[in-house]
This record gives sequence, C-alpha cells and structure tokens, in this order.
Amino acid sequence: MLIVQKFGGSSVADNERIFKVARRITERYKEGNDIIVVLSAQGKTTDELIKKAYSINPKPSKRELDMLLATGEQQSVALMAMAIRSLGFPVISLNAAQVGIRTTSAYGNARIRTINTERIEQELVRKNIVLITGFQGINKYDDITTLGRGGSDTSAVMLAAVTHADSCEIYTDVDGVYTADPRIVPNARKLDEISYDEMLEFAALGAKVLHSRSVEVAKKYNVNLVVRNSLNENPGTVVKEECQVERMLISGVAVDKDISRIAVIGIPDEPGMAFKLFSLMSKAKVSVDIILQSVGRDGTKDISFTVSKGDLVDTLKVLEEHKGMLSAKEITHDDEVAKVSVVGAGMATNSGVASLMFEALYDAGININMISTSEIKISVLVDSARADEAVAAIHDKFKLATMGLKA
Amino acid sequence: MLIVQKFGGSSVADNERIFKVARRITERYKEGNDIIVVLSAQGKTTDELIKKAYSINPKPSKRELDMLLATGEQQSVALMAMAIRSLGFPVISLNAAQVGIRTTSAYGNARIRTINTERIEQELVRKNIVLITGFQGINKYDDITTLGRGGSDTSAVMLAAVTHADSCEIYTDVDGVYTADPRIVPNARKLDEISYDEMLEFAALGAKVLHSRSVEVAKKYNVNLVVRNSLNENPGTVVKEECQVERMLISGVAVDKDISRIAVIGIPDEPGMAFKLFSLMSKAKVSVDIILQSVGRDGTKDISFTVSKGDLVDTLKVLEEHKGMLSAKEITHDDEVAKVSVVGAGMATNSGVASLMFEALYDAGININMISTSEIKISVLVDSARADEAVAAIHDKFKLATMGLKA
Repeated sequence: MLIVQKFGGSSVADNERIFKVARRITERYKEGNDIIVVLSAQGKTTDELIKKAYSINPKPSKRELDMLLATGEQQSVALMAMAIRSLGFPVISLNAAQVGIRTTSAYGNARIRTINTERIEQELVRKNIVLITGFQGINKYDDITTLGRGGSDTSAVMLAAVTHADSCEIYTDVDGVYTADPRIVPNARKLDEISYDEMLEFAALGAKVLHSRSVEVAKKYNVNLVVRNSLNENPGTVVKEECQVERMLISGVAVDKDISRIAVIGIPDEPGMAFKLFSLMSKAKVSVDIILQSVGRDGTKDISFTVSKGDLVDTLKVLEEHKGMLSAKEITHDDEVAKVSVVGAGMATNSGVASLMFEALYDAGININMISTSEIKISVLVDSARADEAVAAIHDKFKLATMGLKA
Repeated sequence: MLIVQKFGGSSVADNERIFKVARRITERYKEGNDIIVVLSAQGKTTDELIKKAYSINPKPSKRELDMLLATGEQQSVALMAMAIRSLGFPVISLNAAQVGIRTTSAYGNARIRTINTERIEQELVRKNIVLITGFQGINKYDDITTLGRGGSDTSAVMLAAVTHADSCEIYTDVDGVYTADPRIVPNARKLDEISYDEMLEFAALGAKVLHSRSVEVAKKYNVNLVVRNSLNENPGTVVKEECQVERMLISGVAVDKDISRIAVIGIPDEPGMAFKLFSLMSKAKVSVDIILQSVGRDGTKDISFTVSKGDLVDTLKVLEEHKGMLSAKEITHDDEVAKVSVVGAGMATNSGVASLMFEALYDAGININMISTSEIKISVLVDSARADEAVAAIHDKFKLATMGLKA
C-alpha cells in the first residue's frame, strides 16, 4: 500500500512529539507500506516568522513573505528525517522545488497546478520514507509560493491524488469528525464516515478539522481520506464519496462565530439594486455568505448579508463610499452574531429537518435572525452569546449523541 | 558599476542592523550601481539549528543537516528584501536553487562548480537589487549543499567572478586586514593593500578576516576584493594581484592557537618511515602542518608534526593502532603550543627576515619549538602561553605600527 500521511504543526512542535510522530510513521513503514509524509512548520514557527516580517515591514512583499515562511516546513522535514534516521529507517526530505510542486503565481494563496512524481517515485523505489514540505510550491518563475491557511492538508491530498495513494491520512489532535464541537457539546459523537459533500459543508462552516480546498481536491480525485488522532490508534473518520452506513437525518451541527451582519436599509425597490450591491462586494474581493432581502414597502427595501469579521471594515468603507450610488438611507452592522448550521446528505429528501431545527431553537427561546439553506445544509443566524446553547439544543433534538434520527 | 557585497551573520543579527545594512546597500544603488548582495544566516541562527539537529540525532545525516541549515540564509535574504523594500527600493531575494549555484555533492563541505547567471541578469536588468543566500548551493541531485565554514565569502567571490563584477566588497566588523590582531597588538596597523598570496597565507594562518577558499577563487579569477567595516565608511583593505605600494619586508604577523604538536619517537632511521607515517594521516583525513624530523642517532629518529586541535584525538588513535607497524618507541603530544607567523611577499628576496624574527623572539626570551618556511611566510611554534607576547615582539621589531621596514 502507498500511504500519504499529514501531520500538522502541533504534532511536530518539539523533540518529544517529533519522535512520537517518527515512531508512528515507521510503524506503518514496517508493515511493508510505501510512505509519503507531509509536514507543516513546527508549532508557532509560522506565526513567529510572520511577526518578524511585520516588525521589519508592516506591508511585506507577499513574494518575500512566502520565501521566508517556506523555511518553516523545510526545517520540519529535515528534523523529522534526522529523527526517523535515528530510529534506523531510510528516509529523505524534499522541499517543494525538489519535488516539483508547481502552483499558480498568487503568493500567499497559491493553488497547486501540477506535481512532478518522478523524484518521489525514485525515492520510494529506493525504499526511502519520503518527507515533503506542506503548504508550499513554486510558480512559473521558480519563486516560492505558499498555499494559504490549511495548505498542508491540500498538499497531502494532492500528493495522494497524483501518486494514486491507497489512502491519505490527515493527523490532527482530535479523533476525527464529530457531530458537533466536543468543547461545546460534551456528548458529541465521532462519526465513522462522512461524505465529501458533507465534509465540505462542515469545513466551510468553520469546523477546523480539514480545510475545504483539501476536501474539494479529495472529492475531485476520489482520494480515500481519513482524519485521525496523532496521539492514539483510534480509527478516525473516513471521508468518501458515498457513505455505507444507514443514512442519518443530519451528520452534525457546526457553529461559525467569525461572522458579521450588515444591513443596507431603504434602497429603492427596483430591479438591479442587488446586482449593484454585490458587484461592489465582488470588486472589493469580499466573500458574502447569507443574503436576505426584505419585501419592498413604501418603494424601498432592505438587503442584509453576512461577511467574515476580517472583511467588516473594508465592506463598510466600500458601502459608505457608494451609499449615494445605492441610494441607501442607512447602513448598519452587527458583529455579535453567529451562524449555526446542521449538515447532512440525508436532509435532501426530508423536509422535516428545518422544522425540527427551528423547534429546537424555539424550545430554547433563541431568536433566529436570518436563514439560509442548501441541499445538505441549513444555517441560521443567532446572537453569538447564545450560539453554543443553540448548538447543544439542536444536537439534542436530532439525538446525535446516540445514533441520530434516521432519514 | 556592478558591485557584489557580502554581509556576515552579525551584520544582520537584528532589525536595527538589518536596516543599517539595508541603507548601506541602497546608498550604493542610488549612485547608479548594479548591486548583488550575499548574506549569511542571522547571528547565531546556524549554531542554534545545529544544536537542534544534534538534540534529535547525535549523528545527523549531512544531507539533512544542509537541508536544515540552508533555511537560515533564506530567512536572511527574505527579511533584508522586506527592509530594502520598506526604504522604497526594488529588490528580490533568491536562494541557491533559484540562482542555480551548482556544487559538488559533498554535503557540509561542497565546492561551487558553476553558477547560472541568467536569473541574476534578468533581475539586474529589471533594476532590482539582487539578494542571494550565501553558504549554499545545490548538487547534481538537486539536493541542498552547504559550503562549510566561511562559505558565504566564497559565494560572494564566485558570484563576482561569474558576473564579471567591478568589485567584491566583503563587509566584516573590523576595518580591514591588519598587520596583527588588534586585540593582541593594540598598535597594529590596517593595511591599505595586500596581495592575494599574502592574504592566502594570512587566511590559512587563522586570521579570520577572509576564508582561504574565497581568496583562492579571487586570485584565480582576478576578482577585485575589498575587506571593509560594515559599521563605518573607511576604505578598507584591497586584496589584489600586485600591490603598488612600496614593498614592505613583511605585511603582518599572525598567530594560530588551534594547534597541537605530536612527536613519534624512536622509529627506525631507515627510508620510507615518513611516507608510512603520513600516508596513515592522509588516510585518516588529518591535515598535517609543520613537520620536523630529527637527525638519526643510535639507529633511530623522531618525527614531530602539528595538527589542528580538533584532529588530535583521531590522530593519536590512528598512531597508537599502528605503533607496531611504525616500530615507534613512544608517541607524545603537546597542545600548549601556538604557531606565530610572519607573512610578506617582500621576504622572498630578503634572507634577513628569518634572523630578524628569531632575534625578536630571543630578545623576549621566547623559545622556538619548530620552524617552517615558505616563499612568503615563516612560522615558528612557541608555547601558547607566550604566543601573544611573541606576536607583539615581532610586530615591534619589524616596525609594523609605523610604516614597516622596507624590503
């Protein structure tokens, strides 16, 4: 079997953890598997390098920032190689340039275009455990690029795809994907399996187990993805195309607190206003999530939408600048909100999910601000102070702690 | 003019120094010059990475160590690029792989074979200040190699050679090359010029201003080399083929305390013994410096020689193992010795130098253990406790503090 394993920064933060991971890697190697390992930078290394960069230049060149940050993963793979060698196993570390991980040119947020598998294959034939720097690539100028947040997950899944690996194991500090965040809902249950689409919704909803881009890639190339705990031997959660288990109504409940609500009030109730508004947002590269448009009254209407907290200031600035063009009476915002969502492929064919979710919130006396639905997801906006309570209430209502309501 | 500048680790140790160097670089750029800058890793970074490696594996793979260490220079060039950019100048950082600095395969001690100038020229045409990682290259496997101690000097001189730079400025924390170490001889005088050959002897003798390999390369390609202080505007010392100044008898006095003397006593006074002994040393990769063979007496003779302190244990081990083969009666060693040398192209045609040197030592009551001479150098071995005194006495005798005795 060819296995790709990915370990995050906290798994290699110090010598003790490096050796723990090294033993884990070599155990799979001893079973006769070919092993490719993708590593992130140690612990807080990336944050420290970013801090150093900003202390020199408050607006560092993105190209130079990538040149700087890429050293973190290179140190990780070199140190891990030394640890594995000291356990007596053959190993080699490779950076993105050495492998030939080609990306787009967007420094700081590049996407992998192609991966050359030649060097990897050579090293696997030599029976080396192959350690590869995550999070980075090189662009057409041979400059170093980084893939943005969660990029090492994507590196691992892409490598699994191009090498036709039998599985791609993403190691983290939890046992897998849960029906809700166990810190919010103590009786949350670990899922044995989840579909790519459900996982995508979870990832997009801020469940930080896997980065969405990596799930997209896994779905596209049908990579057999497993989320496991680096600290124990539990089987983890398998992410795959179709789940074999009896279909539950919903797979889990997620909460996203990185959200602000903006209301553009009193714009003319005529065609094209929403288009004008959201093309402004698009030009400002602001991602808009839930959108709600009020029914027109007295010739005006209101449009509300949510953006991430980081985009709030920019968004308000753009809106104030174009207040006249939009003929808006007022622009208000609220960042004391959170988005609570239920996800499940099972709900596509069952209209009862929404009403059950609303019932749970009603029982708990939690007011719903906005609602948004998709094929496999229902999201509601609630006061952020009551978000955790909302998650717990919904988790209970769908009996997720036991086996969950059946679809 | 095309100028190559090299700054060592202490010159870029913190933000304040980085900006000091950045301003220095941009001043030359503003004058209309094309600038290539070679940087070492910041301050103690390399030592810290080595320590980290050894804490994981007491015998780290040399390949992986180079992979690890190379990150130090990459961080330096990225941070310097951010500093220069913040001063408003166009700049780009390149690592050895991006430039195409090809080396031999000897990890940890590689030699530069070729440098591709294409990318550098492109960036110079774009009017970028080009920052390049010193100390490193890539070998035929595309693996990262490092050049060994003083390697950044060699990187700079090599880059100056292949780009036909008008000058190569090596910045350090002293004003240039001195007639003796100013910490030992307070009235030591800075030399305005010195020949490649004299500089080579100085470098080999442990004057740590320039690494010998870099001087060899400068001599071979006739690179116009200048040693300058990164903290002031003094003109420094020019290293060149032939010095125009009136020839002094000697250029300076150097001392090397990293030395041990070994004596192999009572070996048969017959042909081939020296050959046997030094082929053993050669096999053990021990560099032997001064060699002294006693006149035979009672059918036996003694051979003494010096090695660096780091090689002493290995040397003694090899000798003890082969004591029988050498028919040696006894093997002794002494590491309380130091080598004091006078260097100067002027002495080649003047036999008075040796006697003047010995007179200085006699006046000071310092005993000479061994003597070794070359065309432009005379070295003596003295007790290490009196080495500094010996340097001062010789420095005085040759009147180096003023203008020096003429040849």
